Amino acid sequence: MLLESLRREVLEANLELVRRGLVLYTFGNASGVDRDKGLVVIKPSGVPYEKLKAEDLVVTDLSGKIVEGKFRPSSDLPTHVELYRNFSGIGGVTHTHSEFATAWAQAGRPIPCLGTTHADYFHGPVPVTSDLTSQEVAADYEKNTGVAICRTFEKLDPADIPGVLVRGHGPFCWGETATIAAHNSVILEALARMAYYTAGLVHELKPLSSSLHDKHYSRKHGSAAYYGQPPDKT
Amino acid sequence: MLLESLRREVLEANLELVRRGLVLYTFGNASGVDRDKGLVVIKPSGVPYEKLKAEDLVVTDLSGKIVEGKFRPSSDLPTHVELYRNFSGIGGVTHTHSEFATAWAQAGRPIPCLGTTHADYFHGPVPVTSDLTSQEVAADYEKNTGVAICRTFEKLDPADIPGVLVRGHGPFCWGETATIAAHNSVILEALARMAYYTAGLVHELKPLSSSLHDKHYSRKHGSAAYYGQPPDKT
Amino acid sequence: MLLESLRREVLEANLELVRRGLVLYTFGNASGVDRDKGLVVIKPSGVPYEKLKAEDLVVTDLSGKIVEGKFRPSSDLPTHVELYRNFSGIGGVTHTHSEFATAWAQAGRPIPCLGTTHADYFHGPVPVTSDLTSQEVAADYEKNTGVAICRTFEKLDPADIPGVLVRGHGPFCWGETATIAAHNSVILEALARMAYYTAGLVHELKPLSSSLHDKHYSRKHGSAAYYGQPPDKT
Amino acid sequence: MLLESLRREVLEANLELVRRGLVLYTFGNASGVDRDKGLVVIKPSGVPYEKLKAEDLVVTDLSGKIVEGKFRPSSDLPTHVELYRNFSGIGGVTHTHSEFATAWAQAGRPIPCLGTTHADYFHGPVPVTSDLTSQEVAADYEKNTGVAICRTFEKLDPADIPGVLVRGHGPFCWGETATIAAHNSVILEALARMAYYTAGLVHELKPLSSSLHDKHYSRKHGSAAYYGQPPDKT
Repeated sequence: MLLESLRREVLEANLELVRRGLVLYTFGNASGVDRDKGLVVIKPSGVPYEKLKAEDLVVTDLSGKIVEGKFRPSSDLPTHVELYRNFSGIGGVTHTHSEFATAWAQAGRPIPCLGTTHADYFHGPVPVTSDLTSQEVAADYEKNTGVAICRTFEKLDPADIPGVLVRGHGPFCWGETATIAAHNSVILEALARMAYYTAGLVHELKPLSSSLHDKHYSRKHGSAAYYGQPPDKT
Repeated sequence: MLLESLRREVLEANLELVRRGLVLYTFGNASGVDRDKGLVVIKPSGVPYEKLKAEDLVVTDLSGKIVEGKFRPSSDLPTHVELYRNFSGIGGVTHTHSEFATAWAQAGRPIPCLGTTHADYFHGPVPVTSDLTSQEVAADYEKNTGVAICRTFEKLDPADIPGVLVRGHGPFCWGETATIAAHNSVILEALARMAYYTAGLVHELKPLSSSLHDKHYSRKHGSAAYYGQPPDKT
Repeated sequence: MLLESLRREVLEANLELVRRGLVLYTFGNASGVDRDKGLVVIKPSGVPYEKLKAEDLVVTDLSGKIVEGKFRPSSDLPTHVELYRNFSGIGGVTHTHSEFATAWAQAGRPIPCLGTTHADYFHGPVPVTSDLTSQEVAADYEKNTGVAICRTFEKLDPADIPGVLVRGHGPFCWGETATIAAHNSVILEALARMAYYTAGLVHELKPLSSSLHDKHYSRKHGSAAYYGQPPDKT
Repeated sequence: MLLESLRREVLEANLELVRRGLVLYTFGNASGVDRDKGLVVIKPSGVPYEKLKAEDLVVTDLSGKIVEGKFRPSSDLPTHVELYRNFSGIGGVTHTHSEFATAWAQAGRPIPCLGTTHADYFHGPVPVTSDLTSQEVAADYEKNTGVAICRTFEKLDPADIPGVLVRGHGPFCWGETATIAAHNSVILEALARMAYYTAGLVHELKPLSSSLHDKHYSRKHGSAAYYGQPPDKT
């Protein structure tokens, strides 16, 4: 079987979405990519999580063609591969309909950075895609969802903003690995929930100052990071 | 004992409502119908779920007359049989007071389709019944609840919209089987919750475009569906 | 040891408040009364629920004097005995700071009957007490809390409305037994939560029609009740 | 190993934050101080709670210098020691991003005392710090967070108000011990949640009367306290 280690990591990333309450029934999906081999491992479509095994995951190439797997891949596969082709630094993608992030997506509002929890993970607001055109919906819909995400990131760096709200749909997240992508999905839901409650307490949302935003982001990311343990301790 | 397999399925559908947090104490009820025999299996009234066994369920005919069972049927039985008599394609009915769907029902507002989660399951807004008249409340109240639901569906197809909000009361859902009806109750609560949060983030709720609504519904329903696994794989 | 059976029931009623998420740490208290003996069994003050045993409960008379018990009774005891002295039909009292009922109490708003869940249990809005005067707070505060509740029920029947919101404090519930009082606390919190969400969806809250309110209440209470099983079946 | 007993208490305080749902992943931290030895025990930075052992905690002096420990201390250590140096009566500090307290912090609003639950623990509103200046963010940020908290308490007594909202960040709590500090974090989140829901039910928040506020606070604190059991019973 191909990519046994990546299969196990992607399985765990999928199960993390379940454990954290981000998915209902068979909703949601996580994938990972092996850049050297140019292969993607993704959850099969509509298989219950309780029964999901590493061997049930589907391996495709970066055009979405199945290379190994007895099941159909997630119907969102074309979105995942579009992201892998355009965001060269990412190694994993996750998609959920987690409830607060989806509420912001349904409202068509980006999530402003209102506090340091957000600043720790997203170096700017969580953006929202524009609507797909009717033509983009009619043909290659799932691929065009990925196209719309990439359009949103034309002037943004996906390494700094590891997720997006697809308008009227829900969040996609990513990261260097499938594990980190799942982690970012969990964080995004928590941010979205706290931002929702904050919005209930003020007339106008005021973003965090850029100095504090930069400070928190750089405490955890980049060469001057000092949060957590040094690499050889973890 | 009659209908052992249907009894087991209806028991499981009732327990699914409990597991998913849709019911409190003895609230809620699920039923299933055997169309060939013209018999309905339904939860008994006021029996704790923890003690509920398949043999405790009550079998009635389609007029609501008890055929087998040592307990009284759910007091909502007349609503269930009214739905079975009028919606010929359905095989199961569920009723809960799940909190967000009930809030929309209490507000007397249909739930607009605000996102693809909704579009995956309901091909249009979740409608609200009109108020019953005092006469309809005074006599045959539970049957008249079913009549009010059917009135709401005069121009709607219950196969496309597998649930309704009874004004000032709560949701009823249905499906080809009791299992699917229970599934639809869970989905409806999730939709209702996300729609509630969306309503907190915008001044005016804007429904999803019809092209995207149709796309998502048809990905999962009908001959061109491509979500999940082909029938022989599940 | 006095009243072993009542002690066990009151212990269970206290634990039900914990199981249903209505209390935090040592918050909350349930009591029961033996009308023949004129004795009350109540939770001790500030003892962790995990360690609570039937023998730790405190027995007092209806003036609040301790008759048996190694611990101090709940500091809310004077409120409980005031209710027992004035509401002759009740056999149990529960008090929590459950979050949504407390929010309505803090807002100083009665909970209108917005749906049939409410109508099933409360034959009218859940009332709010008026503020205590500074004098009532300064001396015999806990007794005066009971006095304020009784004042609120001068024109209401505690058998029809089994609970109240103490303004700026939280809910007290009661019932024929401690078990029923605890049940009513759980229901009140659910009602309060659904009413809160309903209030977020409409500009003005419109109560349920009185015919539907009466119908639901009488389905479950009084001689014509037909919900649940007949007494010999339960 | 230094301070074994304090290490165990601080470990438990950290785990209490997890059990009560106040922290996500490695967020949050609790510490305790030994005033005689002038030593602080604090959670290490970024170590998963599931693996955390008493021996993993870090011991520092009151300037924040590491005295014993194989891991880096929490990055918030300088805030903790700033509090220990300025609030001489406290023995423990906790910090979380618990969701409702953080929402108030992100909104920049103090939490008014709206009910007796609040009055039982905080003798006044829960205050919010002012924004740090860009200079305070740029250098010694975590220490300056502590400085901002102390500034907020220039005219407040930390024994009466055992917590604060750091603007745009989240809550810090404290108490005579790490156990009490963790308890106060749990209470603060409950207060914040109930205050949020109360704010959704009224146009203008009206604080509890000062007589009732004082009464509840003094029932539980000071020489005339009568809540709970006398010291020799607990």
